[in-house]
Amino acid sequence: MNAARPLVLMSGVGAVGAYFGGRLAAAGQAELRVICRSDYEEVAAHGYSIASPNGDFHFQPSRVYRSAAECADAPDYLIITSKVLPGINQPAIVGPAVGPHTTLVLIQNGIDIEKDLARAFPHNELISGIAYVGVTRIAPGKIVHTDGGTLKFGRYPQGESESCRKLTALFNAAQVGTEYHTDMQRIRWEKLLWNAPFNPVSVLLRANTSQIMNDPKTVELIRTLMHEIIALAAADGWPLPEDNIDKLLKYTAGFRPYKPSMLIDFEHGRPMEVEAIVGNALAAGERLGVATPGLKTIYALLQYWQKNTAVTAQP
Amino acid sequence: MNAARPLVLMSGVGAVGAYFGGRLAAAGQAELRVICRSDYEEVAAHGYSIASPNGDFHFQPSRVYRSAAECADAPDYLIITSKVLPGINQPAIVGPAVGPHTTLVLIQNGIDIEKDLARAFPHNELISGIAYVGVTRIAPGKIVHTDGGTLKFGRYPQGESESCRKLTALFNAAQVGTEYHTDMQRIRWEKLLWNAPFNPVSVLLRANTSQIMNDPKTVELIRTLMHEIIALAAADGWPLPEDNIDKLLKYTAGFRPYKPSMLIDFEHGRPMEVEAIVGNALAAGERLGVATPGLKTIYALLQYWQKNTAVTAQP
Repeated sequence: MNAARPLVLMSGVGAVGAYFGGRLAAAGQAELRVICRSDYEEVAAHGYSIASPNGDFHFQPSRVYRSAAECADAPDYLIITSKVLPGINQPAIVGPAVGPHTTLVLIQNGIDIEKDLARAFPHNELISGIAYVGVTRIAPGKIVHTDGGTLKFGRYPQGESESCRKLTALFNAAQVGTEYHTDMQRIRWEKLLWNAPFNPVSVLLRANTSQIMNDPKTVELIRTLMHEIIALAAADGWPLPEDNIDKLLKYTAGFRPYKPSMLIDFEHGRPMEVEAIVGNALAAGERLGVATPGLKTIYALLQYWQKNTAVTAQP
Repeated sequence: MNAARPLVLMSGVGAVGAYFGGRLAAAGQAELRVICRSDYEEVAAHGYSIASPNGDFHFQPSRVYRSAAECADAPDYLIITSKVLPGINQPAIVGPAVGPHTTLVLIQNGIDIEKDLARAFPHNELISGIAYVGVTRIAPGKIVHTDGGTLKFGRYPQGESESCRKLTALFNAAQVGTEYHTDMQRIRWEKLLWNAPFNPVSVLLRANTSQIMNDPKTVELIRTLMHEIIALAAADGWPLPEDNIDKLLKYTAGFRPYKPSMLIDFEHGRPMEVEAIVGNALAAGERLGVATPGLKTIYALLQYWQKNTAVTAQP
């Protein structure tokens, strides 16, 4: 690694990638390059404009590539911020840019989403990351930041990592509150505890968080689904305190009306992270022998909408 | 009872009531009167017109009442064919017309829907009935019959009934294939085995039976919900053969695309029989100690739509 100024290559740069990449670039301690397929023309010419309540900012990557193969220099960090969708061969997409000392970094939702990369690059360090941020891409290269903007990182599957510590420090030096963890799978289950109930239910009811929280019977459903996630996490070796449920419900009840990302994707006819957020949890249940009847029901309904939305709305 | 020509009073006459009442009237072996609130003017003036693939027919009740209190003669049979919805006080609606020898008859969907009447009229015979018919009210007094047209009757809660035999004979003499049963609760569970899965899922997916049956994962969901109904029925004392599930699925796969009644109600912004078909099944589960996690999930979602459809669509 170029200790003074590491090279960071980002892949699957949507709103999340542009926001965090932009912060990192603005701090000047890393060189930021991006692989950008769909918005290539706009981003190569003008970079990303990020409107934020903390002050608008601009992110001009030092290089913009159409594919990983165009990047001749092996990056110190290769950060993937795409949505997690079936049929995307992530190792094939980033593979050409991965050098022997490249640390792979995922900033993505869901559970059990690291396996393909871990299997494809067994000798590279892999960092699992989660973002807590409200950002939306409103046009090519145009990003709106509304809420949050923090990260949690940890080595996959667990344990200490010098490389991860350095990445955490880089982000913290760039106005991004970032936590270093040695137990990222616990952190993933904690985030799934909110995501797995609220995202699907919001889609199935076309309801924001306030509408869900205002109906005692839908709150009870959310609670049931949360209990299933807690059971899964415990069987996976990450027992979460039961009172996380009450805390999360109380926290969510305090939101202004908020549309989970899956509902926004649904409303725009975009693919939803059904498998990463629900399907993989069910698979964990099968593997660990944990019953997940509520999640299974939600999943069956949601995957139908996924297919039927995709059919009608995708180009 | 006037053995030669019994007096039949019908209450809650929508499409189902008009169809079967019309058949009975046409056969001439009973006098048919109706209580008809919302369509009173039209029905009093012109009766019901029923378009049917078996030949259109007309049903002119001998009397049309706005309320039960207007009927001075205690009927031999008081047949209720309204939808089963919460907040409707059925005993209060029909009570003024019930004489000491009146047999009460329900032709309605759902499970555990007889209790209010049984409690209110403990000395009257109560017949529980289910219709198998596709009929739609397209305008006041205008009914379209598309499919089926049979009935099953039995004494509530079970056992033999001379009055029920006579009613069965009346309908059979009126071109309505009607079965007499001594175990109507079994028949109700059998019908619920189809209704409780397909009606809610069709609403939650805005899907007809073909769309549901073409997706292996939604079929699997239907199967899971059917297993829960079978467990409930067994605990209630009515074990149904497990292979009913495969038979029903095969039968449904053979339908032309068909919208369950709950989906049609939903699309028209009308109240759905959520409680009679799902809520009462959950209550049975609570009472009998049978887990119904899939149905609970479906119910929580459906009751949200019930409320939100009703809010936006009801006058």
